[in-house]
Amino acid sequence: MSTFSYEQLYKFTHDMLLKIGCPEVHAQIGADVLLSADMRGVDSHGVARLSGYVRLWEKGRINTNPNIKVVHETPSTAVVDGDKGLGLVVAPYAMNVAIEKASKAGTGWVSVKNSNHYGIAGYHAMMALEHDMIGISLTNASPLVSPTFSKERLLGTNPISVAIPADQEPPFVADMATTTAANGKLEILQRKGEDAPQGWVQDKDGNSTTSSNGVKDGGALLPLGGDREHGSHKGYALGSIVDIFSAVLSGANYGPWVPPFVAFLEPDPNPVGEGIGHFFGAMRVDAFRPANEFKSHMDNWIKRFRSAETTPGNEKVLIPGDPERELEEYRKTNGIPLLDPVVKDLSELGQRFGVKL
Amino acid sequence: MSTFSYEQLYKFTHDMLLKIGCPEVHAQIGADVLLSADMRGVDSHGVARLSGYVRLWEKGRINTNPNIKVVHETPSTAVVDGDKGLGLVVAPYAMNVAIEKASKAGTGWVSVKNSNHYGIAGYHAMMALEHDMIGISLTNASPLVSPTFSKERLLGTNPISVAIPADQEPPFVADMATTTAANGKLEILQRKGEDAPQGWVQDKDGNSTTSSNGVKDGGALLPLGGDREHGSHKGYALGSIVDIFSAVLSGANYGPWVPPFVAFLEPDPNPVGEGIGHFFGAMRVDAFRPANEFKSHMDNWIKRFRSAETTPGNEKVLIPGDPERELEEYRKTNGIPLLDPVVKDLSELGQRFGVKL
Repeated sequence: MSTFSYEQLYKFTHDMLLKIGCPEVHAQIGADVLLSADMRGVDSHGVARLSGYVRLWEKGRINTNPNIKVVHETPSTAVVDGDKGLGLVVAPYAMNVAIEKASKAGTGWVSVKNSNHYGIAGYHAMMALEHDMIGISLTNASPLVSPTFSKERLLGTNPISVAIPADQEPPFVADMATTTAANGKLEILQRKGEDAPQGWVQDKDGNSTTSSNGVKDGGALLPLGGDREHGSHKGYALGSIVDIFSAVLSGANYGPWVPPFVAFLEPDPNPVGEGIGHFFGAMRVDAFRPANEFKSHMDNWIKRFRSAETTPGNEKVLIPGDPERELEEYRKTNGIPLLDPVVKDLSELGQRFGVKL
Repeated sequence: MSTFSYEQLYKFTHDMLLKIGCPEVHAQIGADVLLSADMRGVDSHGVARLSGYVRLWEKGRINTNPNIKVVHETPSTAVVDGDKGLGLVVAPYAMNVAIEKASKAGTGWVSVKNSNHYGIAGYHAMMALEHDMIGISLTNASPLVSPTFSKERLLGTNPISVAIPADQEPPFVADMATTTAANGKLEILQRKGEDAPQGWVQDKDGNSTTSSNGVKDGGALLPLGGDREHGSHKGYALGSIVDIFSAVLSGANYGPWVPPFVAFLEPDPNPVGEGIGHFFGAMRVDAFRPANEFKSHMDNWIKRFRSAETTPGNEKVLIPGDPERELEEYRKTNGIPLLDPVVKDLSELGQRFGVKL
């Protein structure tokens, strides 16, 4: 484990993105999105992903100088074609379209096709906050998750993020995979050689397993709920809604056709759409009631929940976004720790392209 | 157990609603919403609720001749004041506003205050389908659910329903409480004297329990996920989002302030808003891409998922909405079975008001 400052990793990421052909402004946005994951503790979606993006670019599956554009629109909606760009760059473009639509029509809703992995969902949702808007960010992803009663991998971990502004209190920011546990958590257990809890994974035959290698060995992650008795059909429905809003609405690939994130797996030769898909929403709070009223009630909501009586052994009730914000504060002063394999991977990448880590 | 025809229960409900002062058109809508729950197998939200509504009316908490109106709007949004009306009637009004907005602006989003229990979430979402729109329906509800790490009941079972049109295939219709299990399922176990699975309920001290009387005895339902290790913070976040969209946006009561559904419990003397809240959305699919393209891809999505390989012991993979639709078909020919206590309750209600069951 080594620790790096934000500036150090930002500069490295920015310079690497320039090396693979990103225009300056895209390198800045891409580095900002990626680093926000490291700062907020979603380490699996931060700089650790950079070499994966580079390999996809080397295979011609990512276009680092894309012509991102709106291809269809109404007063409150748009479809954005990402032109095979980095999702890190396509997503903020599309979210800005949603915010612009909302500033005129009250709300804005943008479905995106022909994109790639977009980093953490929460970054894009949170873009709405400074405009006194509620932000929503969804994306589909490579299939790793089985629907209830199926042994096939048909869905990604398809996250949902919703960011809601408050007044004196920090904003409410939910950012969650629609599975019981994110794949990143499983990978941590794998590295430690530890078992996973029941309800996270099934094996390749569709039987419940506690092996943290279950997914690697051909099994699948389970939808939020774990099994039917504990509501996995709800997690499956949520993941499906994310898939449909992101890809069936836009014309991207959906379900098992979503192209794999890893460069060594080839996309389906008969795609049903273009690239992967995202979905963004922005709602002006004053399209419903005066913003100061809304935000002061949000403060009240947050205070009431945060001060709720706790269950035995727990110190406090958290508001969605609390843990990530606290970690962000901590890492601002203390730096970002990276695991040795990640440091090695980034160093080798930098050497190959002449960029110093 | 006795079985009744749709027509019989519809007429009874309709006539009862007239007796308590609903105008004819409201009696028709209210009966239609309530009966659709019985037809779709959500028995806890059907005619079994009728005497509860009547008791709330008797207490002056439901206004059966409300002046429902839009009190704030933008091209794609509105706030509806339900004037203390039956949610069964307020909700379709608000959903129609969302549909009208969508027909012009591409999408429509309506937050509702000053309403009451609205029946099954799915009814309202499904209103969008015939317009080739995606329908969304959320509501908050009396607090029965504890956030992760809390022993207080701060949220309702706050359901999410999303209805998505297809072409030849039946529509995709998700309709789910944001808890591991709906309260209705727990009540069934109570009646049978059976235990509940782990992860459904906690006791009044916040400890996990398998007692199906846990909620009755002062405990709480658990958010989808059950416990932190299985993602209950995600179910808690989803229930919170439903609460905020339904009530903080509109000016209804939220969290622990939501008035209880049962007439023998008094609402909080210091409310933070008016009545309970709902949230509706309608998105024209052709605000994103041509409707025929969208619907034919939905057919493809549905067929692929429905034909997925199954896990051991399971016959087929279900699409959200399949079980409810199949039951609806069955009950059309075979009638609606009602438990003896429900029949007794309705008979007594009818006698009191001179309406024949």
